[in-house]
Amino acid sequence: MLVVMQAHATEEQVRGVCQKIEALGYRAHAIPGAERTAIGITGNKGEIDPGSLEEIAGVQEVIRVTKPYKLVSRDIKAENSVIRFPGSDATIGGPTLAIMAGPCAIESRDQAFAIAERVSRAGAQFFRGGAYKPRTSPYSFQGLGEEGLRIMAEVRENFGLRTITEAIDNESLELVEQYADIIQVGARNMQNYSLLRRAGRSKRPVMVKRGMSATLEEFLMAAEYVMSEGNYNVILCERGIRTFADHTRNTLDLSVIPAVQRLSHLPIIVDPSQGTGKRNKVTPLSRAAVAVGADGLIIEVHHRPDQALSDGMQSLYPDQFDELMSQIRQIAPVVGRKVSVAGLNATTGLAGVETPGSDRAVNF
Amino acid sequence: MLVVMQAHATEEQVRGVCQKIEALGYRAHAIPGAERTAIGITGNKGEIDPGSLEEIAGVQEVIRVTKPYKLVSRDIKAENSVIRFPGSDATIGGPTLAIMAGPCAIESRDQAFAIAERVSRAGAQFFRGGAYKPRTSPYSFQGLGEEGLRIMAEVRENFGLRTITEAIDNESLELVEQYADIIQVGARNMQNYSLLRRAGRSKRPVMVKRGMSATLEEFLMAAEYVMSEGNYNVILCERGIRTFADHTRNTLDLSVIPAVQRLSHLPIIVDPSQGTGKRNKVTPLSRAAVAVGADGLIIEVHHRPDQALSDGMQSLYPDQFDELMSQIRQIAPVVGRKVSVAGLNATTGLAGVETPGSDRAVNF
Amino acid sequence: MLVVMQAHATEEQVRGVCQKIEALGYRAHAIPGAERTAIGITGNKGEIDPGSLEEIAGVQEVIRVTKPYKLVSRDIKAENSVIRFPGSDATIGGPTLAIMAGPCAIESRDQAFAIAERVSRAGAQFFRGGAYKPRTSPYSFQGLGEEGLRIMAEVRENFGLRTITEAIDNESLELVEQYADIIQVGARNMQNYSLLRRAGRSKRPVMVKRGMSATLEEFLMAAEYVMSEGNYNVILCERGIRTFADHTRNTLDLSVIPAVQRLSHLPIIVDPSQGTGKRNKVTPLSRAAVAVGADGLIIEVHHRPDQALSDGMQSLYPDQFDELMSQIRQIAPVVGRKVSVAGLNATTGLAGVETPGSDRAVNF
Amino acid sequence: MLVVMQAHATEEQVRGVCQKIEALGYRAHAIPGAERTAIGITGNKGEIDPGSLEEIAGVQEVIRVTKPYKLVSRDIKAENSVIRFPGSDATIGGPTLAIMAGPCAIESRDQAFAIAERVSRAGAQFFRGGAYKPRTSPYSFQGLGEEGLRIMAEVRENFGLRTITEAIDNESLELVEQYADIIQVGARNMQNYSLLRRAGRSKRPVMVKRGMSATLEEFLMAAEYVMSEGNYNVILCERGIRTFADHTRNTLDLSVIPAVQRLSHLPIIVDPSQGTGKRNKVTPLSRAAVAVGADGLIIEVHHRPDQALSDGMQSLYPDQFDELMSQIRQIAPVVGRKVSVAGLNATTGLAGVETPGSDRAVNF
Repeated sequence: MLVVMQAHATEEQVRGVCQKIEALGYRAHAIPGAERTAIGITGNKGEIDPGSLEEIAGVQEVIRVTKPYKLVSRDIKAENSVIRFPGSDATIGGPTLAIMAGPCAIESRDQAFAIAERVSRAGAQFFRGGAYKPRTSPYSFQGLGEEGLRIMAEVRENFGLRTITEAIDNESLELVEQYADIIQVGARNMQNYSLLRRAGRSKRPVMVKRGMSATLEEFLMAAEYVMSEGNYNVILCERGIRTFADHTRNTLDLSVIPAVQRLSHLPIIVDPSQGTGKRNKVTPLSRAAVAVGADGLIIEVHHRPDQALSDGMQSLYPDQFDELMSQIRQIAPVVGRKVSVAGLNATTGLAGVETPGSDRAVNF
Repeated sequence: MLVVMQAHATEEQVRGVCQKIEALGYRAHAIPGAERTAIGITGNKGEIDPGSLEEIAGVQEVIRVTKPYKLVSRDIKAENSVIRFPGSDATIGGPTLAIMAGPCAIESRDQAFAIAERVSRAGAQFFRGGAYKPRTSPYSFQGLGEEGLRIMAEVRENFGLRTITEAIDNESLELVEQYADIIQVGARNMQNYSLLRRAGRSKRPVMVKRGMSATLEEFLMAAEYVMSEGNYNVILCERGIRTFADHTRNTLDLSVIPAVQRLSHLPIIVDPSQGTGKRNKVTPLSRAAVAVGADGLIIEVHHRPDQALSDGMQSLYPDQFDELMSQIRQIAPVVGRKVSVAGLNATTGLAGVETPGSDRAVNF
Repeated sequence: MLVVMQAHATEEQVRGVCQKIEALGYRAHAIPGAERTAIGITGNKGEIDPGSLEEIAGVQEVIRVTKPYKLVSRDIKAENSVIRFPGSDATIGGPTLAIMAGPCAIESRDQAFAIAERVSRAGAQFFRGGAYKPRTSPYSFQGLGEEGLRIMAEVRENFGLRTITEAIDNESLELVEQYADIIQVGARNMQNYSLLRRAGRSKRPVMVKRGMSATLEEFLMAAEYVMSEGNYNVILCERGIRTFADHTRNTLDLSVIPAVQRLSHLPIIVDPSQGTGKRNKVTPLSRAAVAVGADGLIIEVHHRPDQALSDGMQSLYPDQFDELMSQIRQIAPVVGRKVSVAGLNATTGLAGVETPGSDRAVNF
Repeated sequence: MLVVMQAHATEEQVRGVCQKIEALGYRAHAIPGAERTAIGITGNKGEIDPGSLEEIAGVQEVIRVTKPYKLVSRDIKAENSVIRFPGSDATIGGPTLAIMAGPCAIESRDQAFAIAERVSRAGAQFFRGGAYKPRTSPYSFQGLGEEGLRIMAEVRENFGLRTITEAIDNESLELVEQYADIIQVGARNMQNYSLLRRAGRSKRPVMVKRGMSATLEEFLMAAEYVMSEGNYNVILCERGIRTFADHTRNTLDLSVIPAVQRLSHLPIIVDPSQGTGKRNKVTPLSRAAVAVGADGLIIEVHHRPDQALSDGMQSLYPDQFDELMSQIRQIAPVVGRKVSVAGLNATTGLAGVETPGSDRAVNF
């Protein structure tokens, strides 16, 4: 159910409707749009009676949402959602492409800084890096843990980059939300509903990667899990699906980008590193991702890929990343986007960077 | 690495080798076989020096295991592993097929008892039922939680059935291991490594269901995660993979049964209910699963499938389950198996059933 | 459209309806059933007006068939179709399982005879072998061509086995129908509609193998192509589909057997050799195929698999085939089937075997 | 095997080597490159002895090609192959993107002309349209046949567009090569080796579409079949593969473009109409295809998609095609390509267009 408020409804009226909904045992999600506020009603109690809401002051109409995804849908919000980061120009979902780059795993302060310096200079606004690595083998390198998060926080402070890193369970999520700007839920955990709910109770934006065999609907429902708990800052990420094709590690499904954008107001970015698993495919598929209309890219970059502790084969050299940035800078305008000016972050310094853990605007 | 002990090595010698291994910073897994004990060495510190171990009293040889799966492999244990349950004749992996049956979700005491009575009478030794349901939508019925577990414990007490139910996170796992005999890790969590590790620290046997897009190696590695923490009572379960085929909900991959059995000593059972998603396919595919050589079946049975809160479409009626049992009873001998005598559990009563939560033998 | 005749309609009345249909520019397919004859109407002229047919003597009713498959469907014929071979007891689709065995490719008279002798003795009634091999590489062995067909005809004469071999184009089909009993259309040609139509104009039964990525509907529509040309003796064959799974060459989809049997009256058999690509998987999956309810098996057998010119890796040794036959002999009764007595064909001699090329009954 | 000639080897020397090869019972394929000629040796007789060739005048070295694809490989020709069409500026594989557009099926002269006028004006150099349609149902519209080809020839004459249309068997291929410029082998026939061989004996360029479940290697081997018969003008086309994903009809695998380009000198284009099956996905995926580096596009355009006899749902309106052309015109330079000037073909008239059926240069 969706309550559409009148264009001039007051905040108090919105609050009143929300209280009424919650009094009935449901959850209310007030979502301000460009022209009016919509209030999503969720819960698994069965359907609410529209009559009891239509009478309340400020309500324009009550609409039944028949799709399984509610808060994710454009029904509740027609405009694109833009995720903002206070103290930074970085956005996700706006006219500037969100470029996230960095190593697969944080290995040391030196490694992280060496890479951060290069990707920042090339124009990335976000630094990626794994502190908790979900590995197929229990005997493989599992990441530096909190030590890795601390290094990322230093990168953040020194280069003015926003950071994104994966949480693999409630314990790591608690740390990730302290140290980083965006919480990543990985492909293997896309249907780890317990983790999605926990992320939904965080104040940090959450990026949900598509599971290897997730349909479009399942992908959107994973985001719905996060939003149903009240965290509306969700980013989706296509990272390749599993098929019979064996020339790439996964098959990057770029058609999901326009498919998501038709149905949902949430931003969606592309990971061509995981999506192909091969360095020589990353740049062409990055160009394609921008051309198809993605809201951004997340790219693995390593200054010494042959020595990387994980996924070196798919990491770009910094020079290749420079070249990639130069190419997408030319493609972006065709789809009404731009790419942030190279080196801007590095030079603006850190004056405006707030302490990790402080409150950030929740934009929806 | 694998330390093979001499045939007549003493327990003390085994202990000595284990202590030496752990002193070097690795983990030792002593696995008694029919003729000798083997000690698996795991850890992600890099490789141990075989020289330092070969000299110890009782050691016959030290072998490098090149496959990514170590403890799961037949290299460490040639014979099939049989999971036993003290106070019960039920086994998994032995000559008697392990038959697990029950509703998708526990809905009420009456429902659970009505179904348990029928499946027990038909010859099932295990009662399945979900208390924590991983649902695609946050707004769908999510299971009764601990209340559901309590009902399962009552079923256990009243019908002498061993119980199996899914844990979806550390919190629910803690409860599941208190109330039930087997902890299930579902397909969506097959690569939730945090949960697998936690299950590996439990004393209960763990059943790991194959992920929807898991390769054979990834499937075995999920079991390896559990075993690497010291829990060697692992059961695998094929439940269908995701393909383009649309006449069933998933494509049941029966070829994985002999493939697993070649490589691993662990038992593997089949879930034709999830594996097909259609009631009329469950019986034929159950017959096929037994014929292919599976160690057991897990089947959804509901006395009123049309009123089931989840997955009614794929649940058998109790009469259909009776018929299925009668059919597999005839097929089992062809593959050197038998099916437990119908109604045995129900009539033997509960004299020998220990309190849930008590210690059970860990057999490997 | 489907014209259902009255139970006591005369042959002349059936003929009358057919003439009327063809006069209207459609094709009429008179299909005798157990109790009544049904007449399928096909053509791509748009729909026929039922009114003009309902008035004709002997017509009971005119039914619109909304499914895309018409002649294949149980709507037109409720009972299972049984393919018969005059001068032989061999059937496909009846209570006796149809067992087809032989080498992947015919390599020489000696090879074919050595294998035929063994599979005949073990109870196979059909001899398989490729004379025209569709190979991924143009530089691989492509089969002996007509020479191979001549050898198969000799096998037929000497062992009383019915023969099945693949046609890859119109030219080879013309020869295959002269020399062999069943024309096989391979998986790679399942949507070669020109070849299917040509097979539909043959008097020989046609076995259509499922394409590697064919849905159930596409599979049935391939059979419909053959039937639409007037050849109603069609056998379907599941041979594995392409998925991400890499432990077998293809993923054998046994759930398609009951799915086909629900919708269609046509017999369906299973090819576990192609379906797994691995010798050690053939016997378990053969057992499973019989248990699931398939109408038969087609198995690769070679007396010297290591020297085979193609697919030796997946061919059974004759002793393994003996063992397989013994196992399925025990499973067959559970699904209301039997397996032909071992060696029967070989001993009955050839008295009743008609010359290849003579007319055979077309049973539907 | 591959014979590399010296840089200054004479034509006569090349001929001498070819004669020697053919005298030994193999087939010789002389492929002129930018700096030297290479001669591919094919045949399935087993390997040729290099010694007998190394001695011949003009030979520099003899190299074993270990990959299964030989003539397709960059081993035999390092530079990109460019397909040219005498009497036309149109090329495939060169710096100008090859843009093919037109209806799914030719329905009438009026329809074809209306669409040709628009796509020609927008800058397409090739007109696509089906005269023989491979349809899943035998009762669906199967194309106009030769009548359709005649209409295409008229389009060719009137608009100066080169034409491409599908052949589905030897009979239709014979007609297609008379009327059209490029013979298309469809996805369903990618492993119809008989048809591929026949296309290999044609003088027309052949476009091979990727099968729905074809691996990269199988795709290249299909082209190898054509080339092994002496036709070196082969174009590859990605048109989507079959996966579990259900938001598009097929999953367009753009990563195959750089993968093919690494291994093969053949041009590869993309079909986003078939590849997505949805009109609203065609433009974004077309942009992506150009950005990834494809050599061209083949797009379905229809002036009245709602009335189309096949695949109207995925056909662009002419105005949408104009917009698409305008977008890719901006992206092309980033990958070193350009798009032919809009309307050029239409205005240059037909002076230079040779009679269909006349000889054309075979460029390799």
